[in-house]
Amino acid sequence: MSAVSPVLDRLDKNLDQSLERLFGLLSIKSISTDPTYAADCRKAAEWLVADLKLIGFDASVRDTSGHPMVVAHHDGPAGSPHVLFYGHYDVQPVDPIELWESDPFAPAIKEVEPGHKVITGRGSADDKGQLMTFVEACRAWKQVHGSLPCRVTILFEGEEESGSPSLKPFLEANADELKADFALVCDTGMWDRDTPSICVGLRGLVGEEITVKAADRDLHSGLYGGAAANPIRILTRVLADIHDKDGHITIPGFYDGVEETPSQILKSWETLGETAETFLGPVGLSIPSGEKGRSVLELTWARPTAEFNGIIGGYTGKGFKTVIAAEASAKVSFRLVHKQDPKKIRAAFQTFVKERIPADCSVEFHAHGGSPAIQLSYDSPFLAKAKNALSDEWPKPAVTTGSGGSIPVVGDFQTYLGMESLLVGFGLDDDRIHSPNEKYELNSFHKGQRSWARILDALTR
Amino acid sequence: MSAVSPVLDRLDKNLDQSLERLFGLLSIKSISTDPTYAADCRKAAEWLVADLKLIGFDASVRDTSGHPMVVAHHDGPAGSPHVLFYGHYDVQPVDPIELWESDPFAPAIKEVEPGHKVITGRGSADDKGQLMTFVEACRAWKQVHGSLPCRVTILFEGEEESGSPSLKPFLEANADELKADFALVCDTGMWDRDTPSICVGLRGLVGEEITVKAADRDLHSGLYGGAAANPIRILTRVLADIHDKDGHITIPGFYDGVEETPSQILKSWETLGETAETFLGPVGLSIPSGEKGRSVLELTWARPTAEFNGIIGGYTGKGFKTVIAAEASAKVSFRLVHKQDPKKIRAAFQTFVKERIPADCSVEFHAHGGSPAIQLSYDSPFLAKAKNALSDEWPKPAVTTGSGGSIPVVGDFQTYLGMESLLVGFGLDDDRIHSPNEKYELNSFHKGQRSWARILDALTR
Repeated sequence: MSAVSPVLDRLDKNLDQSLERLFGLLSIKSISTDPTYAADCRKAAEWLVADLKLIGFDASVRDTSGHPMVVAHHDGPAGSPHVLFYGHYDVQPVDPIELWESDPFAPAIKEVEPGHKVITGRGSADDKGQLMTFVEACRAWKQVHGSLPCRVTILFEGEEESGSPSLKPFLEANADELKADFALVCDTGMWDRDTPSICVGLRGLVGEEITVKAADRDLHSGLYGGAAANPIRILTRVLADIHDKDGHITIPGFYDGVEETPSQILKSWETLGETAETFLGPVGLSIPSGEKGRSVLELTWARPTAEFNGIIGGYTGKGFKTVIAAEASAKVSFRLVHKQDPKKIRAAFQTFVKERIPADCSVEFHAHGGSPAIQLSYDSPFLAKAKNALSDEWPKPAVTTGSGGSIPVVGDFQTYLGMESLLVGFGLDDDRIHSPNEKYELNSFHKGQRSWARILDALTR
Repeated sequence: MSAVSPVLDRLDKNLDQSLERLFGLLSIKSISTDPTYAADCRKAAEWLVADLKLIGFDASVRDTSGHPMVVAHHDGPAGSPHVLFYGHYDVQPVDPIELWESDPFAPAIKEVEPGHKVITGRGSADDKGQLMTFVEACRAWKQVHGSLPCRVTILFEGEEESGSPSLKPFLEANADELKADFALVCDTGMWDRDTPSICVGLRGLVGEEITVKAADRDLHSGLYGGAAANPIRILTRVLADIHDKDGHITIPGFYDGVEETPSQILKSWETLGETAETFLGPVGLSIPSGEKGRSVLELTWARPTAEFNGIIGGYTGKGFKTVIAAEASAKVSFRLVHKQDPKKIRAAFQTFVKERIPADCSVEFHAHGGSPAIQLSYDSPFLAKAKNALSDEWPKPAVTTGSGGSIPVVGDFQTYLGMESLLVGFGLDDDRIHSPNEKYELNSFHKGQRSWARILDALTR
């Protein structure tokens, strides 16, 4: 018999107690963005420290200039990997409270249809319910085997819903203590109810605001039109030049570091059944706008983009004004993948723009953020092990996905701890996180615990 | 001896009295945009009617729903042309009053340097001083010859500085009474202190606002970027496509009706010494932005343009927001020349835009104004006669110029009275019209009167 089987049995048996514990944590109003609830945030941190100590972790509340962190350590067998598990105990505000069908801080089990139960309450899915799946897996393993299968460090933050101001300094100050072989992050979702997913790619971001300046004042377009440079014309020319007719980005060097996604990964994405219609239909669109010949999942998970997030120039009020503006500006962002270098992308873009500015005009740049993409190797042994473990637990095999956006903590782990992250979570798209009537599937909570037990087992074999 | 010589002598002799009369008109606070001065506007109209009656005109104040018009008629010899002279008796407000060196409604002669005198006061150049040059020419002619050399109708409006709301309905209602062989409009300027000018081309205008609509809501550029259509990208593509690299406008059919300016006209413009540096330097630019190989004067006087007067879309506040907007819009205007048809231009532009909108997106159009260009034939005999007359009066020969902007009354004369206009005026660029310390050169007032006498003489020979 494998080491994990009795742990899975124990998790099945312990489900009611694990729910009681979760309800205890869910009833704490740890809304991080509202200073009124600062004491509740600390209470949640203390609750977690006490619970982790019961399991046998060396756990403590660690003060920051904001809400405290929870850090906990547990040894593992010599030679086993060292994992850092990350979650957050803070929650979103509950407004508008009148739309909640029950008290957001009085968690309950609700049977939405026969045999289909959910856990209701603020934080049930984001992220208290998710982080407790890992804690329960550790507890059961310890109960059954008297130890954990590998060395585990836990980091719970209390400011994820309010911009994580303390995270970077805390990671920097405690890098030696927190650095592990890799991180496990439980703050994402399943592909669907039956299909677990591991997110291995998160796009990076470079934001740049450009302001084109022409005449030293606004001009009358009758008197000067045809002679004087129009900054909106220059700006639209620059922006239009960025994409060719097939949606490729034309900035020299832009694709340096971009890799082709392995064909078996692309094939696995094809099996997910996501099409341009299913992806874009809900927002009223139907035609992918990016590089031709690539699926919407590849476009959003594994390809870089140039997007224009804002543009303004000249007269924008009601009616008309025959003006040639003195300046016009745009906010441009690039989503990066793989090994694209934010600094090189920014420099290449600036050069691209400058080459298109007439000699009697000028351009100013303002940088807004720059972070590289996160990309776990598709052939990482940890990934393969975790996928197999998840596939053993759920009705359908686990899929490797990407994410078009970024999850800052993953980049911070890379930057400050030099550590990759495996993103595994059990949320569903309809969990209503950040909204009234947040819920977490009872199935997610139960099979999530079992999934972590399987993953811990797999990672150490 | 010609008929005009004694009239010119009389004008020289009458200069002081003509100044007294002008001062009388200038002292009336006929600020049309401010209802406080409605009675002053009527007073100015009545003053003009009284003065025209003294000359022998059949003159009357004609009520409108706004400030009144002045209409006056005087017969001419059988077979002589019938001219309609236009000017406006209303003036701009005087704010900021504290910047005036003297009372704007206490006109005076000021010697700015030895031998160089100006008439100071609101309306001195725009347009009371100018319209009185014509009235004085008629008065002197009548005094000398007991008649006028041609049939003259005069129209003075009192709402030019406040949008001329009554002009179109008045022209329409009184078309039979006002229609003449052509109009003389005295509301423009000289090329320079020594060089009179006749403006024969005024560009037309088509304004169009376009709004590109993509998704039915704003999207997160991380989650949707690369898949969802971005309306700013579509809009900038559309706008960038309008000009080719040589500044030509690529909209099919756009140049239909555009004529090449005769080479002798282009040569005469070359002699004016206006260069890209002299034209654009004062506003901080130096490189003509329009069709390559054409001078700034040709570009602004005789070539059509497409200008982008405003653009807005997405997030335009401080900082950055990674949004893909639901829509983006731009205000586009076309300056038209010669026989370009505003309706066809608008339709061609709409087609051009629609062809560039992806099938899952849409575009909306909002029309803002449409008027054809005004172009007097370069070989009109009236033009040649008027040019010769002006050349006889001033140190340098008269030049035929264009104007990049439009003067609405000229279009209205064309539309409602089917009549071309000859634009002759004696203002200078430094007259500070619409600003504090407006002035009119004493020389402009005196030689302007003489110029009109010569023009009336020339037109009837």
